[in-house]
Amino acid sequence: LRVNLSADILADNEEIAAGTREWLRDLGVLCVGLLSSPGAGKTALLEATARLWTGPGNLQAIVGDVATAADAERLARCGIPAVQINTEHHGAACHLGAPAVARALDALELARGDTLFVENVGNLVCPVGFRLGEHFRVVLLSVAEGGDKPLKYPRAVLDTDLALVTKVDLAPHVDVSAEEIAAAIRRVRPSAEVLAVSVRTGEGLEEWLSWLRGRAADARGGSP
Amino acid sequence: LRVNLSADILADNEEIAAGTREWLRDLGVLCVGLLSSPGAGKTALLEATARLWTGPGNLQAIVGDVATAADAERLARCGIPAVQINTEHHGAACHLGAPAVARALDALELARGDTLFVENVGNLVCPVGFRLGEHFRVVLLSVAEGGDKPLKYPRAVLDTDLALVTKVDLAPHVDVSAEEIAAAIRRVRPSAEVLAVSVRTGEGLEEWLSWLRGRAADARGGSP
Repeated sequence: LRVNLSADILADNEEIAAGTREWLRDLGVLCVGLLSSPGAGKTALLEATARLWTGPGNLQAIVGDVATAADAERLARCGIPAVQINTEHHGAACHLGAPAVARALDALELARGDTLFVENVGNLVCPVGFRLGEHFRVVLLSVAEGGDKPLKYPRAVLDTDLALVTKVDLAPHVDVSAEEIAAAIRRVRPSAEVLAVSVRTGEGLEEWLSWLRGRAADARGGSP
Repeated sequence: LRVNLSADILADNEEIAAGTREWLRDLGVLCVGLLSSPGAGKTALLEATARLWTGPGNLQAIVGDVATAADAERLARCGIPAVQINTEHHGAACHLGAPAVARALDALELARGDTLFVENVGNLVCPVGFRLGEHFRVVLLSVAEGGDKPLKYPRAVLDTDLALVTKVDLAPHVDVSAEEIAAAIRRVRPSAEVLAVSVRTGEGLEEWLSWLRGRAADARGGSP
């Protein structure tokens, strides 16, 4: 007997993710996944987005971490209803899975036009292989991580729809520029869409909101 | 038929790691594992260590990354012979495994008194569960990652011997101090040994070298 366990787990995950994606699309809810290393600024980006958001719809979130409910609490404080999943209680602590995300949807009250963020465990490797039902996936790469990360973690760039170079205010203090990271991203994926942002200075946030608003409007107007 | 595949893989890994650990101890070689998020400064720390190292013995390294040979090349340029393992060619891309590390040893010429670093894939979750033959494990946490990472990734602190808070020169530019991160580490593990370092300013490097020299001297004088 030989069982390709890894392939089976991926197939099950993909099937549940496809169901979630379709259910959210029919509901008119945009679902955006956020992937990054620990501390690249996923939660800080959502806090900044909440401060500036004028619609369409409301922002909600499902957030994954190995331990703590810190991120859900941060998001709740800035008006984003959020469900925390602690992966240490699941099979693989290193990434969210589609079944846990599907169950977390029950705890949210989603309405047409809303945007649902799914913030993954901080990890630039494992989350990439597991779809969760997102319509778009965004990878965040902080300038503080250095310029070589897109080359070292190519799937994080290849399998996502938008790359945000974050914490660009730190560029003068580290030996790398946002342009260098964008160039490394485009070496892996020449057609990559890249935005440089800083939640401290506000740089790039209007472009990020514009990207998001367009997709939220499309989702709201999508198939009923 | 039910196979606890995950437990089997861990048991095999642990057995090979124990063999490596013993073989290196008998050889009088200190083996230090480095774990961190992507871009916390593992390779930069080794470059700085190479510049300041006066013995005992020489520094050598085995470095893991999903893709590229960039780190081994950086280390070779500063005089550390290094073997690169690309985990994208192995079963699990997200961490080094003891079998690959054991094979990589063949490519190095280790001598009594040497220090061998094993730099893992940048990932604060998966590498923690897989011993590689290290006598000591060091976790690096960059101030740029924020103050909550020890709480969110508790095993990275619990299962390592020394925590280095890195890039402390960036503290004035981010909303977190080295002391805050050290306090979070000690909330998870009150007895944790913590050093604050910056390879840009040199802060804390003498303490790090002193920690390392002591352990290298112990290893050299160990059982024949």
